[in-house]
Amino acid sequence: MRELFELCGADPELLFSPYCWRVRLALAHKGLDWQSRPIRFTDKELIAFSGQKLVPVLNDDGETMHDSLAIFAYLDQRYVQRPLLGEGLAAERARLVERLSFHMVRVPLLKILIPRVWQVIDPADREYFRSSREKALGMSLEAFADPQGGERLFREGVAPLEIWLREQPFLDGQAPGGCDYLLAGMLLWAWCLGAQPWADDSALGAWFTRILQTYEATHGPIKRAAIHVEENQ
Amino acid sequence: MRELFELCGADPELLFSPYCWRVRLALAHKGLDWQSRPIRFTDKELIAFSGQKLVPVLNDDGETMHDSLAIFAYLDQRYVQRPLLGEGLAAERARLVERLSFHMVRVPLLKILIPRVWQVIDPADREYFRSSREKALGMSLEAFADPQGGERLFREGVAPLEIWLREQPFLDGQAPGGCDYLLAGMLLWAWCLGAQPWADDSALGAWFTRILQTYEATHGPIKRAAIHVEENQ
Repeated sequence: MRELFELCGADPELLFSPYCWRVRLALAHKGLDWQSRPIRFTDKELIAFSGQKLVPVLNDDGETMHDSLAIFAYLDQRYVQRPLLGEGLAAERARLVERLSFHMVRVPLLKILIPRVWQVIDPADREYFRSSREKALGMSLEAFADPQGGERLFREGVAPLEIWLREQPFLDGQAPGGCDYLLAGMLLWAWCLGAQPWADDSALGAWFTRILQTYEATHGPIKRAAIHVEENQ
Repeated sequence: MRELFELCGADPELLFSPYCWRVRLALAHKGLDWQSRPIRFTDKELIAFSGQKLVPVLNDDGETMHDSLAIFAYLDQRYVQRPLLGEGLAAERARLVERLSFHMVRVPLLKILIPRVWQVIDPADREYFRSSREKALGMSLEAFADPQGGERLFREGVAPLEIWLREQPFLDGQAPGGCDYLLAGMLLWAWCLGAQPWADDSALGAWFTRILQTYEATHGPIKRAAIHVEENQ
């Protein structure tokens, strides 16, 4: 049995963790099935068997893995069809692309999404979410959140990806690969929380739609939160 | 015979084009010798045989190539030792890393280096340099140049590369590869013009020194311009 422990909101069908989405996309790419095990931020005991406290955790018939990049590498080693990271230089460069694209989108998306995460999570998770994030950010959630500023930073950040995607359909070239899923997971974080800081008619938007439609064609529609976020928050 | 047509200043030994430096580093990586053919911006007739007007141009025993990335691909195909871009996913990702790292450093370096390029080029090149760059930038050289602002933008731009290089010695992992030379060429543009917007004790600085020392160990010291640039220009 293959189980994916992944973060959910108060609604167990609302999945929004970017790192968990990376793994879902990777499993779908490999053509592998899995059972979803949705957990809340504070359900740490349910993943204690992994020896650490963060999702995603993959339990593949007794083999336990955590961390999205480590899970990609494991999947490539165990299931050799359709490489995600690949080997040697290809894998090294996938990790570098992940680092650079992560740097471009993570802070902008966090500024947009913090008020939305707050709304969708189980009330029992709110104290953990606030204290862990405020410690990491060095400021209050309210001081950090800035949806409008985040949208501007997002557009600036993805500018070189936008140019790249005008010239080929995927980050990894003519077909989607590990680099595509590592970034698309980040964008699904926004998508599932009802935000979309990219334009439908941008190259990035068209790329995201290609990834989304391929996934949904085999795994059904992805649930999005219906959120009312006050403007100028 | 292998000839590299490359940009020089009024001093034919002062080479500063980032794209030409990429090719020098790539040839050295492959263990190949070459004859330098330094030309000025306006010596277009000397490379007319390549069917276009930009350096670098490589004439490899009658095979003519231009554009640094195309030259890397040619070198990998013709001389299979020590791949630069590699094949398949590795090559695709090297091009994406090039695009992203180029975006991070090019404008900041241009803001720092415009006054320096102006000083070192042959006076006969100045009209061409001004008109071609002002057309591309959409403003005067003086309005665009901003060495202090450029240094700040450079440090912000290379932040994710700095983190990456704290964890492994090269962009391409444990040994230098095409991604390293594509970025190092950009930094040699600054270095040869007497500028260094990175700290010696940064991870990026240590990486640059490794690349530089390996090159100089086999090809001798790289000439740097002695430039006096007025502060607050």
